[in-house]
Amino acid sequence: MGIFEETIKKITPQDSVAREAAVKRIESLTMPRWALGRVLDLAVDLCGMNGKVPPSVGRKTITVMAGDHGVTCEGVSLYPKEVTAQMIANFLAGGAGVNAMAKLTSAKVIVVDMGVDAKLDSFKSDSSFLDRKIGMGTANIALGPAMTRDDAVKCLETGIEIANSLSQDTDMFGVGDMGIGNTTPSAAVAATICGKSASEVTGTGTGLDENGWKKKVEVVERAIMVNKADPEDGVDTLSKLGGYEIGGITGMILGAAALKKPVLIDGFISTAAALIAWRICPASAEYMISSHQSAEPGSRFMLEALGKKPLLDLGMRLGEGSGAALAMTIVDAAVNVITDMATFDEAAVSDKE
Amino acid sequence: MGIFEETIKKITPQDSVAREAAVKRIESLTMPRWALGRVLDLAVDLCGMNGKVPPSVGRKTITVMAGDHGVTCEGVSLYPKEVTAQMIANFLAGGAGVNAMAKLTSAKVIVVDMGVDAKLDSFKSDSSFLDRKIGMGTANIALGPAMTRDDAVKCLETGIEIANSLSQDTDMFGVGDMGIGNTTPSAAVAATICGKSASEVTGTGTGLDENGWKKKVEVVERAIMVNKADPEDGVDTLSKLGGYEIGGITGMILGAAALKKPVLIDGFISTAAALIAWRICPASAEYMISSHQSAEPGSRFMLEALGKKPLLDLGMRLGEGSGAALAMTIVDAAVNVITDMATFDEAAVSDKE
Repeated sequence: MGIFEETIKKITPQDSVAREAAVKRIESLTMPRWALGRVLDLAVDLCGMNGKVPPSVGRKTITVMAGDHGVTCEGVSLYPKEVTAQMIANFLAGGAGVNAMAKLTSAKVIVVDMGVDAKLDSFKSDSSFLDRKIGMGTANIALGPAMTRDDAVKCLETGIEIANSLSQDTDMFGVGDMGIGNTTPSAAVAATICGKSASEVTGTGTGLDENGWKKKVEVVERAIMVNKADPEDGVDTLSKLGGYEIGGITGMILGAAALKKPVLIDGFISTAAALIAWRICPASAEYMISSHQSAEPGSRFMLEALGKKPLLDLGMRLGEGSGAALAMTIVDAAVNVITDMATFDEAAVSDKE
Repeated sequence: MGIFEETIKKITPQDSVAREAAVKRIESLTMPRWALGRVLDLAVDLCGMNGKVPPSVGRKTITVMAGDHGVTCEGVSLYPKEVTAQMIANFLAGGAGVNAMAKLTSAKVIVVDMGVDAKLDSFKSDSSFLDRKIGMGTANIALGPAMTRDDAVKCLETGIEIANSLSQDTDMFGVGDMGIGNTTPSAAVAATICGKSASEVTGTGTGLDENGWKKKVEVVERAIMVNKADPEDGVDTLSKLGGYEIGGITGMILGAAALKKPVLIDGFISTAAALIAWRICPASAEYMISSHQSAEPGSRFMLEALGKKPLLDLGMRLGEGSGAALAMTIVDAAVNVITDMATFDEAAVSDKE
């Protein structure tokens, strides 16, 4: 049995005993019943994932998985493909959006080359960079599959291995992406698994105008028609319509779930990866936390399928794990509440009459 | 001219030059146009308030203003009035919700006795406690005015003085409340200034059932009818329908606005105080940041009047400044972005084609 099958086997539902203990503790704390709303729901979830009260989320790592996409030659993005590699330098220098957000909770940012179409030798000495390149960008999904099924499994295994190796000093994961053009494969994945049309799930990405959007919808339609991915088979969908970084993120999520550690899902691309993880192993969704409502329309359908309500809705659409990093502050809030607040007894506060 | 008039005179609109400079800087940063959405809107606002780019928000203080309410004798709350004083002990010991949230950004928590109906001598030696008691709880607003007009002005002046004195080591304020029964006066204030009926603005507070809610609506109706507050006169509305802590919060907000420092508005009670501040001096709204959507229905109308959209919507309804404290993390995010992110030029990243 390979690491992929082993990992799936280890993923079990949340610990119901820990969840009940969390609810009991929260109800004893000095506030009206459930007065911190979804912050408390989150605290219960975290306890259920970890199997203990309070949960551990202190040490945080955000992985930014990067890959290029053959489909960019169809003109689906405003930015040139070179930006993927340029942004990796920016992440490693601490100048990107995800770095600004990660600083809030002292989360580490690790950048993974899953399949960037550029030689990135100059970064290899950086301890925040992992070279796991599977290919020099995917093939154009408007013409055929993004990658072979073997490569799709390799993406998943790579993500799982990274989660396992980072877990030594990580209590909570955040997953993000970098890949010019990657809202297009994500839209194709969303349409396929959610059973929606291309126009329902396709957004304007980094800022397309009306004509650009129409062209992108047409590309997503072609990708769906040409590839005929099996919506019931996550690995098939990933290999035909996904991307190297999307597969890496899916692997990270499955790895985190097997480790019983929470994983914060960023925006549209990470949610597509999460949807594939859920399709491969439904119980993995119990370890996912949706960080924010992406501005891309397909996001909503995917979150519905996953049964998730995002913590934040601030019109963010950057990717990189920036939303996951920001939402880590809300996770810290949930843990502070269940850890630090006094009970009615401890504080000698009268409970309701 | 007293401190009240002087403060109002000092409140001016945001600095449009700093706002423009902020927009220009943000548009040069390595991300697609406005890709962090409302986080960027917030960054522009903060620069406009401070009159500089980047803005300063490092040193944070949350004031929890406490007061009791004569109207509790009408049975409008599930909790006994004694809880107000008991919770002050809890705040000072660090065991309350606001403390757990304030820890996220190392915000200081200062508790102010504006009018608690209990002797609080034992707290006077605590450097986090301010004794500014104006009365032993307000009068019952269902029978007549909460306080005299002179006392309402005294509340405002007290809040202003506290803002001024804390400003020496505070870049950003958060305002919160503690006062058993205070959703009732807040609902009366909301109905009066927003021109809504009692049933439209009244919620279930700490968890009333259907009958409890109906009784509360009837109490709010009586308070409105008996007092006939002038909706155009913020001080009149405060004195007839408000509370000592509500007036203190209003004063804090006016003080912060005069100091050109941002003030994070917590939930329902603080938003009622903000509404009074806006009625007294409309420009003060330019220094307010709405932290979260309260579960109380009147909140929505007040935020509309103020032209504010809350940063968070997590079903919180605790008060104490807990939502303001949590939203400070989003403010820090906005400042990190405008301060730390690299420009396209600095990072040698290609801009859109």
